[in-house]
Amino acid sequence: MHPAPSAPRPAGDGVRLARAGLCRLVEPTDPTAMLLLAALGPVAALEIAAGRRAIRAAEHTVLVRAGAEAGYGPRQIDLRRALERWAGRAAGLDPAADLAAAARAGAWFAVPEDPDWPEALADLGLFQPIGLWGRGRRGLLRFPAGRAVAVVGSRDCSGYGRGITLDLAGALASRGWTVVSGGAYGIDQAAHTAALAAGTGAPPTVSVMACGIDRLYPGGNEKLLRGVEAAGLLLSEASPGCTPSRYRFLQRNRIIAALSAGTVVVEARWRSGAQNTAHHADGLSRPVGAVPGSVLAGTSAGCHRLVREGSAVLVTDVDEVLELLQPLGTAAAATDPADAAGGPAAVVDGLSQPDRVLLDALPLSARSRPDRLVRVAGLSVREVLGGLRRLEERGLAEESEEGWRRRR
Amino acid sequence: MHPAPSAPRPAGDGVRLARAGLCRLVEPTDPTAMLLLAALGPVAALEIAAGRRAIRAAEHTVLVRAGAEAGYGPRQIDLRRALERWAGRAAGLDPAADLAAAARAGAWFAVPEDPDWPEALADLGLFQPIGLWGRGRRGLLRFPAGRAVAVVGSRDCSGYGRGITLDLAGALASRGWTVVSGGAYGIDQAAHTAALAAGTGAPPTVSVMACGIDRLYPGGNEKLLRGVEAAGLLLSEASPGCTPSRYRFLQRNRIIAALSAGTVVVEARWRSGAQNTAHHADGLSRPVGAVPGSVLAGTSAGCHRLVREGSAVLVTDVDEVLELLQPLGTAAAATDPADAAGGPAAVVDGLSQPDRVLLDALPLSARSRPDRLVRVAGLSVREVLGGLRRLEERGLAEESEEGWRRRR
Repeated sequence: MHPAPSAPRPAGDGVRLARAGLCRLVEPTDPTAMLLLAALGPVAALEIAAGRRAIRAAEHTVLVRAGAEAGYGPRQIDLRRALERWAGRAAGLDPAADLAAAARAGAWFAVPEDPDWPEALADLGLFQPIGLWGRGRRGLLRFPAGRAVAVVGSRDCSGYGRGITLDLAGALASRGWTVVSGGAYGIDQAAHTAALAAGTGAPPTVSVMACGIDRLYPGGNEKLLRGVEAAGLLLSEASPGCTPSRYRFLQRNRIIAALSAGTVVVEARWRSGAQNTAHHADGLSRPVGAVPGSVLAGTSAGCHRLVREGSAVLVTDVDEVLELLQPLGTAAAATDPADAAGGPAAVVDGLSQPDRVLLDALPLSARSRPDRLVRVAGLSVREVLGGLRRLEERGLAEESEEGWRRRR
Repeated sequence: MHPAPSAPRPAGDGVRLARAGLCRLVEPTDPTAMLLLAALGPVAALEIAAGRRAIRAAEHTVLVRAGAEAGYGPRQIDLRRALERWAGRAAGLDPAADLAAAARAGAWFAVPEDPDWPEALADLGLFQPIGLWGRGRRGLLRFPAGRAVAVVGSRDCSGYGRGITLDLAGALASRGWTVVSGGAYGIDQAAHTAALAAGTGAPPTVSVMACGIDRLYPGGNEKLLRGVEAAGLLLSEASPGCTPSRYRFLQRNRIIAALSAGTVVVEARWRSGAQNTAHHADGLSRPVGAVPGSVLAGTSAGCHRLVREGSAVLVTDVDEVLELLQPLGTAAAATDPADAAGGPAAVVDGLSQPDRVLLDALPLSARSRPDRLVRVAGLSVREVLGGLRRLEERGLAEESEEGWRRRR
């Protein structure tokens, strides 16, 4: 167990070192590793994962229980096999050297125990990053995800996509939104560029990278990324020196989605990382927008696919993006949760923003079907279906043959 | 009164003349006129509407009752004011001359009492066309709406829209679909052109025009429209000599929607006739698809709007259009007309067209009252009441206290 500090002071060196070690040792979405961390805390988790000592019987019981709570059966938490997996990296593990390398690159290492850890990452649950390596003003780290928007898309974007991105990210940034993206060529590059030029938010832009924080990758973006560092933040969950792999890119996308109120995909091919970001956002009940384009251009095929599948709302300009991020009548709710569902704060406490919107869209006396709720609430099919079940579990919604309504 | 013919033979001259007169006299979506027609039949309706005689007390009662059944209050059926409205045209009314003018242009006039009247138009209910002036092979008139697709869009289309339309309409027509459109410049023109070139359906393409059938409007499409006439059908509900008005264009769109299994909007501006066609289709529970395009092009703004509003499904190619037209598992039903009424062909043999429509409108398990059947089937009160008795005699319908249903 790792009790959060009750006073806002940074995590202790032991915790930070242990998390730096785990960062290097395990993949950030390895369920066994993340359960070990969640169940036993970073120090014990690292000792066990690095093979410095065996897991104790009592610890194993806690681990299995934590797994069960997260939906993993005992056979899915195969610690013996995981230890074999980790052994290769465990040999040369030197978290102090990683922290020193980061410091040499002007970087710091933030951990969930720090008071300025971005709150929104908790929505990733078990798969919250082990820690975040960062460059830029540390004081900006706790930027509000509620005022941040992910603008993502293909690396091999078209001139059309680049132009749209410059317009959209510029308009969002000039209205105080933090533009989050991935620092890559193409759409990401245009998004950061426009946000740096127009941005008034704090920070104007954040780049969540897939490589080590000591590298400015890709090389052609070095100057841009230095600009992001100066005005905003560069973040990565990869240890210093890490080179970007496809796997890292895909995992990184969940952080981009979690740090933002919503995600806009400007261009994406049929299969693409941007699609993956959108699905992460959808899974986090964050709204997703997709910009349409020519049906003849492969660069828009992924956007059209997201809209057809109901995973994204079609957006064509900044107003429609803002509507997506702050659905009608919920702009106030973002600042006053008590008003959102027309009841005491207790009712909606702990509800995600989309679930609040859904609750708001549910009729009190008539009945509404999910397809209608999708339209009325401006949520995806997935959000509505998932949200209805969550609201039902809390006794806030009820279903009949005619459809759904709110329970008083 | 106009008893439906029990054998499939054309309507009598009196009915045809009366409907031709009404076509000229009233607007096709004038509720008072259409209620008069539904309640009293075409001959009496024309006599009264043209001011040749006063409405009788008993007829007025039937009219008000028909209005109430269709949801119109007595004050909404202001016959006195309607007669003032119609008086201007009534003076020079000469339906025989209209029929002669049509004949000179090689056109015919089909009426709902004809056995080849397109069944699908009944879905327009009260606002089924009074009659249809047509050119081309009359034998094609009863083409199945279940194998027809409306392809519509802006007159001032882009090169992009034109290219997409040529591809899409060509692909649909080559698979045997009848492409229905409006004969205008732009998207309509491309749709007809591609269907004529590639079409294998019977007919390959149908143009529903907003002007009189004796005109080939717009002039630049004359050659194309002659091609449509030769291979397919030109249809119009406007009397010969009529010039197209904006109002006519918008009303015409309901016919395009009704004659098709679904509508694809290739390009449409924010406010456009194509949007109007899509909304007609949506109102008729016909699926609507919209092709996306550049967000910078005003020519796609209406398509994006339809998708955002939930009125249309985003479609990018012919496969997605076919998926829209034939949802999973229903493809077979559309090709076998015997299945349409849920029974073997023999069951409906010898039934008049209105009685077939009525049989189709009868629920299998629930019960339906005559007033509801009037709305659902788009038949007159008299047709419904007479038809129910005829169906009952044949053992096809049964009555209980709760209403009528189909007997298996």
